[in-house]
Amino acid sequence: MNDHPSLTLATFAAQLDFDSIPNEVVERTVNLYVDWLGSALAGKGARPVETIARFARAAAGATNEDLCEVLIDRGRTTPYFAAMINGAASHFAEQDDVHNGSVFHPATVVFPVALALAQAKRASGRDFITAAVAGYEVGIRIGEFLGRSHYKVFHTTGTVGTLAAAATAGRLLGLAPLQMLDAFGSAGTQASGLWEFLRDAADSKQLHTAMAAANGLMAAQLAADGFKGATHILEGAQGMAAGMSSDADPARLVDRLGSRWATAETSFKYHAACRHTHPAADALLAVVRAHRLAPRDIAKVVAHVHQGAIDVLGPVTAPRTVHQAKFNMGTVLGLVAHHGYAGMTEFEQGFDASEILVFRDKVTMTLDAEVDAAYPARWIGKVTVTTTDGRVFDGRVDEPKGDPGNTLSRDEIATKLHRLAAFSGAASEEEAAQLLRRAWGVAEVAQIGPVFDATPRTMVAA
Amino acid sequence: MNDHPSLTLATFAAQLDFDSIPNEVVERTVNLYVDWLGSALAGKGARPVETIARFARAAAGATNEDLCEVLIDRGRTTPYFAAMINGAASHFAEQDDVHNGSVFHPATVVFPVALALAQAKRASGRDFITAAVAGYEVGIRIGEFLGRSHYKVFHTTGTVGTLAAAATAGRLLGLAPLQMLDAFGSAGTQASGLWEFLRDAADSKQLHTAMAAANGLMAAQLAADGFKGATHILEGAQGMAAGMSSDADPARLVDRLGSRWATAETSFKYHAACRHTHPAADALLAVVRAHRLAPRDIAKVVAHVHQGAIDVLGPVTAPRTVHQAKFNMGTVLGLVAHHGYAGMTEFEQGFDASEILVFRDKVTMTLDAEVDAAYPARWIGKVTVTTTDGRVFDGRVDEPKGDPGNTLSRDEIATKLHRLAAFSGAASEEEAAQLLRRAWGVAEVAQIGPVFDATPRTMVAA
Repeated sequence: MNDHPSLTLATFAAQLDFDSIPNEVVERTVNLYVDWLGSALAGKGARPVETIARFARAAAGATNEDLCEVLIDRGRTTPYFAAMINGAASHFAEQDDVHNGSVFHPATVVFPVALALAQAKRASGRDFITAAVAGYEVGIRIGEFLGRSHYKVFHTTGTVGTLAAAATAGRLLGLAPLQMLDAFGSAGTQASGLWEFLRDAADSKQLHTAMAAANGLMAAQLAADGFKGATHILEGAQGMAAGMSSDADPARLVDRLGSRWATAETSFKYHAACRHTHPAADALLAVVRAHRLAPRDIAKVVAHVHQGAIDVLGPVTAPRTVHQAKFNMGTVLGLVAHHGYAGMTEFEQGFDASEILVFRDKVTMTLDAEVDAAYPARWIGKVTVTTTDGRVFDGRVDEPKGDPGNTLSRDEIATKLHRLAAFSGAASEEEAAQLLRRAWGVAEVAQIGPVFDATPRTMVAA
Repeated sequence: MNDHPSLTLATFAAQLDFDSIPNEVVERTVNLYVDWLGSALAGKGARPVETIARFARAAAGATNEDLCEVLIDRGRTTPYFAAMINGAASHFAEQDDVHNGSVFHPATVVFPVALALAQAKRASGRDFITAAVAGYEVGIRIGEFLGRSHYKVFHTTGTVGTLAAAATAGRLLGLAPLQMLDAFGSAGTQASGLWEFLRDAADSKQLHTAMAAANGLMAAQLAADGFKGATHILEGAQGMAAGMSSDADPARLVDRLGSRWATAETSFKYHAACRHTHPAADALLAVVRAHRLAPRDIAKVVAHVHQGAIDVLGPVTAPRTVHQAKFNMGTVLGLVAHHGYAGMTEFEQGFDASEILVFRDKVTMTLDAEVDAAYPARWIGKVTVTTTDGRVFDGRVDEPKGDPGNTLSRDEIATKLHRLAAFSGAASEEEAAQLLRRAWGVAEVAQIGPVFDATPRTMVAA
């Protein structure tokens, strides 16, 4: 077989070695893991998450003694269903991480697979981290390869997530390079996820991440068992790019593999809203703080955004649910103006409060040439605020809170996890603290155990 | 909610009543069911089918007492995994049915779901038939809606099959119209399947049908449990057509619903090869028989085909496996010229025989304006045969064997099932005869029981 970009990428993922990963990338991956745990716990009790969990338990059939942990209820199931449920859970709060350049949320599809398979195989912490990094590096590059045209219609975390999950699972299963390429083929031909659900506040986002994780894991397990995939599923004449992109660039697939660590470029989310709202939210916060403006002082806010923000947020004009509100710029800016933060609690308690609805109507989005040209490599935030007494302020942030140059500290990540676990009731304060102590050391353990190992095991009978 | 084509189609599927289905459509559906059983049995022992079956058994976890039958080994599993395994099995032999106008293979995604859920719910034969017809009518119209551009890159049986499976499952679950629309939304956003695998003789076709069946069933089960889907997943601005078609026509979605029975337009496959080869195969057969030509008398065959045939068959120039050979026009015409039939046994025993390789090199395809204009509504077969002594014969068939106007009799369907079951060893002669007696009466039974009810139940532990 001749070399080609997909094979190069598959070989990288198959052969990625812990010792070749720089220390700062390992440390960042641990932070991304802990950050993900918080998002997974936050999914507990969310209707679409629990619906998928009920489906998975019934589909799995009888109770079983498998090792893999379901984080929202500490039950156990097979790797397939653990990946499915944890994948569904960890994107619900919109607090999981994002890679700017690929507009891809890696954690919610990578860690459910890494955790489930590592638990099932009793893999080491080094293998766990290595597999996660393989998933991040592969997924991010495939997202960049598919380009902006893909994201206009397709939910990249669903489509590309399937491949990231396959790379993660493939590394933990020890696939050889050609088997990894088979796994890419079986994952890529199952890649799916459309943005249409946003218009209805439908539950599809949870389905996308659940199935990206499960299908990616399946693709790798099939490959390990000899199942053949297309060798050019990404860039072939009837492959993913041919069907789902008009600006794909195969060179992006192998961009500085092994020297550029895309994993460390991943941003933590600070506000509990669609990432496309964060730059403007932080820019507004800068204006509000600098000029000590109260919400009632503000007559009008123009958010100067990139086209992708208009594509995703534009359809949501009058949000009916908390989840939909996270995709409405006016709601997010209203929460930020009133509370200085758009977190889970702020959304739940106030997304439809009368003062937020009033503020929402003061906000418009407009396409900005500078912001759009910088995107998706950089997510610049720009707002123009007009006060009721006629003053006009321009606000700007070059890196929203959580971006690599403005990242979260371990203390901030821990605080975020405590908030998320408390919000959903998935862990007590003490349990969260215990879980955090263990999770920070994940890279060093000889064997990946349960996240909640102090808790008695319960069965997850349908 | 305002009416729109997707809602109309969902309402039709949700409210389809056995008594509104014409008798001849019911009878045809029974024939399609029995024809499908043969294809499902033929998948036994096929490596990709058995790989998916092993995956499903492991993913399901512990053994269980569920009612749903796995046809290739008569094991039992949950509806989800029974649909997955039977869906994987029944497209392998390339003998399952096809609807010409939509270029969609309904049986392999509809019947695995109908059988699994009907067994689990102990549904009546009438409900089983009604659900199958709902799946055929919905899937065929969505395939027609997505148009020819979709099929150029996407394997319609994978993509559209997910929705056909959802409609089938939704009808058996008794979904209300808006729930059925939710099921369409969750199915459509998971729709996937790319033709790229053909270039490598990869195993993806089995994965596509397995997952279309499983994902469609999942979508309906989620909808029954309150999970929301996009209401315009088919025709919305970020829906399936927006992402995966350039010539979609929403009017096709509701074309004569309830008066035009697309189910009865479905063709049975006669040759065990890609349907795109059948028109030319039958046209060649007509020439060979009319002029009593032996293979050695033939110097050259030009198959005059539609563009879709060139898209799908064109990449396969030197098939390395039986499955790939089914997508090579030269191989199929070679088998037909030598044996008068391109069946399972002919492929297995001779796809790479030296005389077939010699014949293969005599065959070319060329785009034909008349054939292309008639396609996909009609699959006209035209060949020009040049003999070694310089004579030139044109052959033509307007409806290849198995098409609605040239359909298979129940005797021919039974013979085909016997051949397929014997080929894979999935059933003895006597078992096949017994199974056939029961299957012909499927519409009348009070409760859908096992296909193999004389056989002791065995467990399918991983």
